[in-house]
Amino acid sequence: MSEAWLDAIAFDDQGLVPVIAQDRDSGRVLMFAWADREALRRTAAEGRAVYYSRSRGKLWPKGEESGNVQEVHDIRLDCDGDVVLLSITQHGGAACHTGRESCFFHRLEGEEWVVTDPVLTDPEQLYGSHHHE
Amino acid sequence: MSEAWLDAIAFDDQGLVPVIAQDRDSGRVLMFAWADREALRRTAAEGRAVYYSRSRGKLWPKGEESGNVQEVHDIRLDCDGDVVLLSITQHGGAACHTGRESCFFHRLEGEEWVVTDPVLTDPEQLYGSHHHE
Repeated sequence: MSEAWLDAIAFDDQGLVPVIAQDRDSGRVLMFAWADREALRRTAAEGRAVYYSRSRGKLWPKGEESGNVQEVHDIRLDCDGDVVLLSITQHGGAACHTGRESCFFHRLEGEEWVVTDPVLTDPEQLYGSHHHE
Repeated sequence: MSEAWLDAIAFDDQGLVPVIAQDRDSGRVLMFAWADREALRRTAAEGRAVYYSRSRGKLWPKGEESGNVQEVHDIRLDCDGDVVLLSITQHGGAACHTGRESCFFHRLEGEEWVVTDPVLTDPEQLYGSHHHE
């Protein structure tokens, strides 16, 4: 397999790029995460989103614990080659570890952040006693 | 003016947060940039996107040179408080400094990045002899 497409990506000094996951059908931005070279290689090869967890310092195959995998339809790269955009289908409906569809559930109204989205799935059901994937 | 909403944002160790700009009508993700506290304060106050240019080390009111300002309809924050999502209208039609609608104009096809979008506006017209805003 050629890796020229990976060579074209401008990873930062930690070897990471920002990744935006967008729902293919609704167009909603569901989450933001980071990926290293191996995470992107696996994302393309498996057709499922694999990120790199900065807090845990390792690969993070999305949905590994929760079962809420992200099927990847399309991988895009920006003009500077340093941001990736995934077009996905979120299995299980909840991309966010809080059990919401999208991580972007706070909207600024006046000078306050207001929660706009319902919890679809109890996070306890997603992760058991863990808080995060 | 209360700044509690800004205090709720988890800026990184460089005082920045990633910002995703999404077209309100089409849902297309147009660009990715960074903002500091002052950039977000101005974005909210002016209703136009203001970023922070890491390469130039200063505030970057989008469209300042090109006239292609981004009217901001909605400001969202993610679950961890460390990523911002703007719902915008891109004036002039081109968010990207290459003169394209979106910065995400490379799509992975097989093992190659393919350019999917036409140039709408000659970058020379946007920025004169400058390459970038």
